[in-house]
Amino acid sequence: MTKIGILGATGVVGRQMMQCLEERKIPVEELHVFASPSSLGKKLPFQGGEVEVQVADESSFAGLDYVFGAVSNALAKKYRQAIVDAGAVFIDNSSAFRLEDDVPLVVPEINPEAAFAHKGVIANPNCSTIITLMAIAPIAKLSKIKSIQASTYQAVSGAGKEGMEELLQQMKQLQNNEPVTSHIFPDQIAYNCIANIGSMTDNGYTSEEMKMLNEGRKILNLPDLKVTCTCVRVPVLRSHSISVTVDTEDYIDLAKAAEAIDAYPGDRYFEKEVPSPLHTSDQDVVYVGRLRRDGILENGIALWCCGDQIRKGAASNAVQIMELLLAK
Amino acid sequence: MTKIGILGATGVVGRQMMQCLEERKIPVEELHVFASPSSLGKKLPFQGGEVEVQVADESSFAGLDYVFGAVSNALAKKYRQAIVDAGAVFIDNSSAFRLEDDVPLVVPEINPEAAFAHKGVIANPNCSTIITLMAIAPIAKLSKIKSIQASTYQAVSGAGKEGMEELLQQMKQLQNNEPVTSHIFPDQIAYNCIANIGSMTDNGYTSEEMKMLNEGRKILNLPDLKVTCTCVRVPVLRSHSISVTVDTEDYIDLAKAAEAIDAYPGDRYFEKEVPSPLHTSDQDVVYVGRLRRDGILENGIALWCCGDQIRKGAASNAVQIMELLLAK
Repeated sequence: MTKIGILGATGVVGRQMMQCLEERKIPVEELHVFASPSSLGKKLPFQGGEVEVQVADESSFAGLDYVFGAVSNALAKKYRQAIVDAGAVFIDNSSAFRLEDDVPLVVPEINPEAAFAHKGVIANPNCSTIITLMAIAPIAKLSKIKSIQASTYQAVSGAGKEGMEELLQQMKQLQNNEPVTSHIFPDQIAYNCIANIGSMTDNGYTSEEMKMLNEGRKILNLPDLKVTCTCVRVPVLRSHSISVTVDTEDYIDLAKAAEAIDAYPGDRYFEKEVPSPLHTSDQDVVYVGRLRRDGILENGIALWCCGDQIRKGAASNAVQIMELLLAK
Repeated sequence: MTKIGILGATGVVGRQMMQCLEERKIPVEELHVFASPSSLGKKLPFQGGEVEVQVADESSFAGLDYVFGAVSNALAKKYRQAIVDAGAVFIDNSSAFRLEDDVPLVVPEINPEAAFAHKGVIANPNCSTIITLMAIAPIAKLSKIKSIQASTYQAVSGAGKEGMEELLQQMKQLQNNEPVTSHIFPDQIAYNCIANIGSMTDNGYTSEEMKMLNEGRKILNLPDLKVTCTCVRVPVLRSHSISVTVDTEDYIDLAKAAEAIDAYPGDRYFEKEVPSPLHTSDQDVVYVGRLRRDGILENGIALWCCGDQIRKGAASNAVQIMELLLAK
């Protein structure tokens, strides 16, 4: 039996974490759910009963085995030491610690062994990176990967509950001929695409795009991996899609690649149908399709993949990391 | 003074052609607008007056100088010979004739000289291809292009008025908690992305994706150009966006590329802002931004471009082709 805390339990990822704990029948002895003072005392349904929202402080983590983080980088940094000092393992969904040498960055299907080297903190990777790597990891087992070229079609759930609300609100405003207001996204997202997620860095890539490079290298343990990434927000609610070209050292037959993807835990390959982000919403499997030879790179393979940002891109992956540790 | 016919005048591209003729102050002596029998007798506003919709037959084109086609491949094929026999130049927006040796495929900024070799038919290229090539043509003038890698974010206007109506209708259905119905697109497009435009070909690419390869080679006069393309429909109304990597024989400085794009007729480069399909809607300029080094190809340059599908992707480009011929 396990004692668990969730930081940011009222957000879209935090709530999904609670649902994943239920669905995956994790033996939870105690669940402590933390959120901002505005949610203090609110009751959240869990395993047939209710849990009451608390506001975390440094003393909140005593006796807990695992704490899930579904909060900002700033809050993750604020509570890290207290969680580790309390002896709990902090499985954090923010990007604050992902590139630290002592912090494993784990997709359980891909690099489960990394999780066991943790020193109190394990990081959950970026959502687009998880979904892209889930699609190409089976190919990486057939031959070493040289490069990843990715253009993303990212759902508004990547900006949390507020992102989803903003898209729905803008659609209502347009229906009612009211002025469209944007607070979460840098521009109207309804009927639009925004190729500007995160902050711009000196090399012209955004912080979101650099995650695909830096996190991809760390998770695949390929320090020389080359990556070009363009991250684009689209008016989709909760699943990300990615147009990918992967280049490998050896030539891989497409039928073999399709077979490997379909056999990979957490993936499903579609031979005839074309996966769409609506198809993958509110379930854990990454759907892959459109496998074909790249027209430019000799061994290149192009594909299209979709996965739920809130689940496999965040909450489910985090709960799977805990399952790895519980199983040991 | 010029006598002009428009086939498919009541569609979204046909109506835009009429608006372009007005805006660009083409000296129109007569305008004959053709559509299906259901629109017979309908009056369309033009240059302060009205023109009445006719149903075309083989005898409709006598005395006309130019006929614009904004109809299906089947109808374009049906009327081609009658138009040519009448001595008019057929500027056709369908894909029926684009790859024929005797039919010039023209983007006036890029290969205007090709237009003059026509034998009665000039083809208007695919919309995504026009917008992508407009963005990279200035780079192609600095060094020979070796390859184009493109992932598209295509508006529903690419499927005509019915495509736009279907997206708006689906949004209403969702607001009213009614079942969503799809007739034009293979799946719900509201809050979704569909990586399946046109028909699937034997090599795993769609017919829409093959246009970028075949039309790109013809327009740029580069028979060995390599292209990888993934075409995706997104819930955007009328501008296409494309995430592009272009590889060149020589290394091109990013600042030089930006300068060349901004100086190119019909293009505008954005150094700090990120262009979006909302920004480019209902105007003719292709907006380019996010210029940066590709992470994989030595001379590769990545960029993001947006342009109005109905205007530069279709109607305006066709009217510009006529202007080339009128100016000679």
